[in-house]
Amino acid sequence: MRKDIQSIIDQMTLEEKAGLCSGSDFWHTKGIERLGIPSLMVTDGPHGLRKQQDGADHLGLHDSVPATCFPSAAGMATSWNRALIQEVGAALGAESQAEQVSVLLGPGANIKRSPLCGRNFEYFSEDPYLSSELATQHIQGVQSQGVGTSLKHFAANNQEHRRMSVNAVIDERSLREIYLASFEGAVKHAQPWSVMCSYNQVNGEYASENSFLLTEVLRNEWGFQGFVVSDWGAVNQRVQALQAGLELEMPSSAGIGDAQIVEAVKKGELSEETLNVAVERLLTFIFKAVEHQKDNAAYDQEVHHQLARRMAQESMVLLKNTDHILPLQKKGKIAVIGEFAESPRYQGGGSSHVNPTKLDQILNELKAAAPEAQLQYTQGYALATDEVDDMLITQAKEAAVNADVAILFVGLPDRYESEGYDRTHMSLPANHLAVIEEVAKVQSRVVVVLSNGSPVEMPWLDQVQAVLEGYLGGQAFGSAVADILFGDVNPSGKLAETFPVQLSDNPSYLNFPGEGDTVEYKEGIFVGYRYYDKKQLKPLFPFGYGVSYTEFEYSNLQVDKTSLTDQDTLQVRVDVRNCGERTGKEIVQLYVCDVESRVIRPDKELKGFQKIELEPGEQKTVAFTLDRRAFAYYNVELGDWHVESGAFEILVGKSSQDLLLTTRVEVESAVRLHTVIHRNTTIGDLMDHPATAERTKEMLSHFGMGEALKDNPEMMLAMMRYMPLRALIGFGQGKYTEEMLAMNIQQFNSLLA
Amino acid sequence: MRKDIQSIIDQMTLEEKAGLCSGSDFWHTKGIERLGIPSLMVTDGPHGLRKQQDGADHLGLHDSVPATCFPSAAGMATSWNRALIQEVGAALGAESQAEQVSVLLGPGANIKRSPLCGRNFEYFSEDPYLSSELATQHIQGVQSQGVGTSLKHFAANNQEHRRMSVNAVIDERSLREIYLASFEGAVKHAQPWSVMCSYNQVNGEYASENSFLLTEVLRNEWGFQGFVVSDWGAVNQRVQALQAGLELEMPSSAGIGDAQIVEAVKKGELSEETLNVAVERLLTFIFKAVEHQKDNAAYDQEVHHQLARRMAQESMVLLKNTDHILPLQKKGKIAVIGEFAESPRYQGGGSSHVNPTKLDQILNELKAAAPEAQLQYTQGYALATDEVDDMLITQAKEAAVNADVAILFVGLPDRYESEGYDRTHMSLPANHLAVIEEVAKVQSRVVVVLSNGSPVEMPWLDQVQAVLEGYLGGQAFGSAVADILFGDVNPSGKLAETFPVQLSDNPSYLNFPGEGDTVEYKEGIFVGYRYYDKKQLKPLFPFGYGVSYTEFEYSNLQVDKTSLTDQDTLQVRVDVRNCGERTGKEIVQLYVCDVESRVIRPDKELKGFQKIELEPGEQKTVAFTLDRRAFAYYNVELGDWHVESGAFEILVGKSSQDLLLTTRVEVESAVRLHTVIHRNTTIGDLMDHPATAERTKEMLSHFGMGEALKDNPEMMLAMMRYMPLRALIGFGQGKYTEEMLAMNIQQFNSLLA
Repeated sequence: MRKDIQSIIDQMTLEEKAGLCSGSDFWHTKGIERLGIPSLMVTDGPHGLRKQQDGADHLGLHDSVPATCFPSAAGMATSWNRALIQEVGAALGAESQAEQVSVLLGPGANIKRSPLCGRNFEYFSEDPYLSSELATQHIQGVQSQGVGTSLKHFAANNQEHRRMSVNAVIDERSLREIYLASFEGAVKHAQPWSVMCSYNQVNGEYASENSFLLTEVLRNEWGFQGFVVSDWGAVNQRVQALQAGLELEMPSSAGIGDAQIVEAVKKGELSEETLNVAVERLLTFIFKAVEHQKDNAAYDQEVHHQLARRMAQESMVLLKNTDHILPLQKKGKIAVIGEFAESPRYQGGGSSHVNPTKLDQILNELKAAAPEAQLQYTQGYALATDEVDDMLITQAKEAAVNADVAILFVGLPDRYESEGYDRTHMSLPANHLAVIEEVAKVQSRVVVVLSNGSPVEMPWLDQVQAVLEGYLGGQAFGSAVADILFGDVNPSGKLAETFPVQLSDNPSYLNFPGEGDTVEYKEGIFVGYRYYDKKQLKPLFPFGYGVSYTEFEYSNLQVDKTSLTDQDTLQVRVDVRNCGERTGKEIVQLYVCDVESRVIRPDKELKGFQKIELEPGEQKTVAFTLDRRAFAYYNVELGDWHVESGAFEILVGKSSQDLLLTTRVEVESAVRLHTVIHRNTTIGDLMDHPATAERTKEMLSHFGMGEALKDNPEMMLAMMRYMPLRALIGFGQGKYTEEMLAMNIQQFNSLLA
Repeated sequence: MRKDIQSIIDQMTLEEKAGLCSGSDFWHTKGIERLGIPSLMVTDGPHGLRKQQDGADHLGLHDSVPATCFPSAAGMATSWNRALIQEVGAALGAESQAEQVSVLLGPGANIKRSPLCGRNFEYFSEDPYLSSELATQHIQGVQSQGVGTSLKHFAANNQEHRRMSVNAVIDERSLREIYLASFEGAVKHAQPWSVMCSYNQVNGEYASENSFLLTEVLRNEWGFQGFVVSDWGAVNQRVQALQAGLELEMPSSAGIGDAQIVEAVKKGELSEETLNVAVERLLTFIFKAVEHQKDNAAYDQEVHHQLARRMAQESMVLLKNTDHILPLQKKGKIAVIGEFAESPRYQGGGSSHVNPTKLDQILNELKAAAPEAQLQYTQGYALATDEVDDMLITQAKEAAVNADVAILFVGLPDRYESEGYDRTHMSLPANHLAVIEEVAKVQSRVVVVLSNGSPVEMPWLDQVQAVLEGYLGGQAFGSAVADILFGDVNPSGKLAETFPVQLSDNPSYLNFPGEGDTVEYKEGIFVGYRYYDKKQLKPLFPFGYGVSYTEFEYSNLQVDKTSLTDQDTLQVRVDVRNCGERTGKEIVQLYVCDVESRVIRPDKELKGFQKIELEPGEQKTVAFTLDRRAFAYYNVELGDWHVESGAFEILVGKSSQDLLLTTRVEVESAVRLHTVIHRNTTIGDLMDHPATAERTKEMLSHFGMGEALKDNPEMMLAMMRYMPLRALIGFGQGKYTEEMLAMNIQQFNSLLA
């Protein structure tokens, strides 16, 4: 195939080459009939196809063909279930094949910097390791069906506010450790067919024309083999974008971008070779896609609906369950309150919006699951408004007071969360709040089921007995939530993000969404639990948290060695036992802590997780493999990940705040950081370094400091610790000169060479 | 005099000029006998003279002559008493005259960024307005006696850790609004004879050779007329320092720095004119000092001791006083616990350390104040160690259990706080903690008196009935604390800094003391209460807080206008009444809040305060004048302070968290910020600006967007709000070109011109 592509390129005119670098319309690449290059279709979105019919408007807003709506990424992430997410990916791939779609535009691996980001429901986590692991599975699943993915939105697109103009200012270490790391693992392990650049600027350059991101990092460092596509309308200057590594402009610019490329080549401002490389990458993709196209592909909608249901079951997190109020018995009087029970909130707004093949209605599913129970539904609030309707509240209270238990389906209505804008607060609508508070006054058994794409504040938490976070559960949310509420399925999700008590607790709060077209990521690496941990700020619910209907015991944490180099891997094992009475799944989490560091580091970082299923009394051994990266931070000076030699703690447990077992290992780095001694290197640093300590003492003794050092070593050392070398000139009072200083600096540097 | 100086300079050799730019030893400037230039003495420190005897060692560590030790700045600041601080300044000036000292090296106006900074006890506040106001009074007081001050440490010297090499990285707005503002007011209003540059680097340049700080800001913008002296040993490269605006290197470099200056002039690397300007400034100072020297000056040590006592009375803050347990009755059994009662902690370590003329011992002063009470002293803990001594605890409990009330004198021993190093935690020593907790178990009336230079955590707060924060109260702390405890004086101090519940709550926590030689001020302008306010993080005790033995009522907040331009001043008045039964002083605080802003701003900022004394039932009207600066933020693009037109709230009350009265004014800026339209200006911004809104609609209508806008204005506007102009090219699908874009940009810019 490689040779053919070269010969095709040789036959292409300059105009044809430039033309291939943009779409023919909103959803298709350009075909060139005379060369046998077909036009291919790409389609939104991460958790379901949004394939628009042929007569689609050029803004891409019209209805799409029916497709399975799976839980959105925020929910899927709470499963921490690699295999299940891959299975969903494969189903998405199968649907794409059935719809002749060559690339499904997703998944999104942006980090949840603030709970307010309008698109958080499409993203996995606040943690880059978890996010990249799950994105990897999603990509592998879709691509297993011969359909490409487009990992998006690369990079630092962590808000919708002014997303097309805002400049995300991020120091390189935080960019590498948090925002890029979330993409890095997925690119390296899953090789998405494409990566979609984001709208925003990153450190002053549009992502679409950012050669640091698109070429240096993505291709040169990570080995990305696919093509880069612009987010729809993200190209600022076409020629610069091509030069930076953006191959495909979408949607069509009606020939304007193409003409700019042609002109630039003709003027010699753009080398034709650069264009050829882009064309080669695009043709490679096109022919690969064609090769993988399946004729007459189809899928079973009901099978996919059941998969959506299984995914939804694990896309919920049981946050509170006082006195085991859940699961509910399938009998007695149950008040079902909240319009969501009739009109579920199951997906978010914007480009990911799917036209579902089928939609479970919660109330019907509850009735079907518990036919012997008496379910009384009341609306509770009107979805169309935030205003409290006293009549609806009264009806809800009446239903609740007469019931054995009340289930409240509340959350964020559609208009609260969408691509295109951010929330400005974390509160539920006033009418949802009111119904919770009023119902809780008359009923001592209240179960709150939340539907929302991103955390909300819960000032009412103490007033209710159970809280089930349902996220945006997709088209089968209704049956899945019935499965969980009645105990047919044991909840097994754990939070992939921290729930703060209040918005202002969030680390980005002081700098979100920024000033004008600048947003500074001043919290640095302290995103999500890294911040709450370090600041000792108690979250409402911590990262990794979730309750089961059963209990798990941890024991016997073992490592295969207690000292290693950063070239070795470390095997970690732990035994987990189901000590309760129901079968359940546990998400076993492993965090690594650098015990002592010269650089600012989080208290701990997630470096491994496994989800296992255990029957009552069953025990399994869970194994993890940690490599260099598990211990490393990004060293900007070195331009590489670096492990600081020393002790590391391995912490294993149920959540980021419930780490039951710990052990310690010593890791020795193979890389010695180069130290350069200069006139302002401190005496303390020279004394601390084994290579320079002796010479430092000698030097000090040469002009009388040695004696003072001998007489009163502690005091002198304390005084001199922070003193730069050049200060000896002043303290030497003529005995120590600039020339001697220069000589000493040279000597020290040769000792370190 | 001016002419004489010029003629002296004309007579000086190059070597003499260079020589004048450094000290002759540790404490003296150089004299040149043949030209009648005397050698002058300068001496530490801010709250008392540390004049070393003639035989002083060259490290400046030996004992100094007796001098009055006033409360250190951290304590003085809690008085918020301008007149009293000026009185102390005048006393310091008088002592300097008596000791033939020409410049007293202080005050320190560095901002308390972290409670850990080892030198916080020498600084006033976390708030730049309060700090600069008090520094102004201190300077005016000293200089009223014909003695110079040296306002220090300029700038951004907010930690002792690696102070001689660390680079403080601060964005310009935070530097201007927080760190420099604390110096700015004092320089402008009090014209200190000198300013002392700090050891550290600021944004990559040593303060000693930072022409932005020493020349651009200090001289050109603020109009500083004096000379700049290096902190002792702060000169990195002598010639660069001179060029940047540092006139006097201290201490002597034994001729090395002088020789470098001579050589640089000879080589043409330094213009002799630059040297002449420095010499002129130094000679101006020298002759001014000589002119103001008083022969046979003397001072009355007892009078100064009594002033130190009055200052100490107001340098304490009553933090808690459950059930009016204080003031104590001068009778009954009182357990006096803690070695501080015998050996008070009354000052900090380092260059500010004073050899007091006299030292009140607390226990004696308590006995003297309440001769009829039975005071039983026990040691409680040993000052020399942190280790809990069970015998001492037992004795303390025995004393407490047999008493009507227990007073615990605890705090931070000398070794905890000093120039030269920072604390690493905010805890009291283990043995101090133990004695509080154990005594509180057996005595229900416990008064804790703290001696410390900077906040401590108080996990025991709920277990005691009263807490008096004594700071480092100077040599008369003993009598002053007796005055307060027994009610002879009503406490009137309020915190000049926030007390956090725990260290990790502090805004600098994630970035203190930095990594290697870099400390990034990532909290930006959110220092002190600006952070706790915005983050809605409850402090242990808020900024501006303090309790009195009486009560004050606020009423009748009035402004002289409700709308003004930023060229006007605003008069604010409020009535305050003592509604309790004791005479007392109240610190009335005024904060300003920008109600809505396009830039990130604190919730409120201190912009006025007045301390008044009121007899029971007495009422006074307190007046404030607010000018442009009270409403402004520093606009980096503009390079100036800027008031954003709009509503501002004026909040008046007892503390930053207890603002009883508010009113609103509209301020109109005289300055219009210049907007430049470019290809990535958003449609939303164009629609929002009155000058461009119409043209924008027209433009959109030209290629069909106008109709969509008419049909569905809300949705289209929401979609287009964040869309940059250049995105219209893509959305225009050929109808809108780069040429049209360029033309539109030009048109918009001419509308704004």
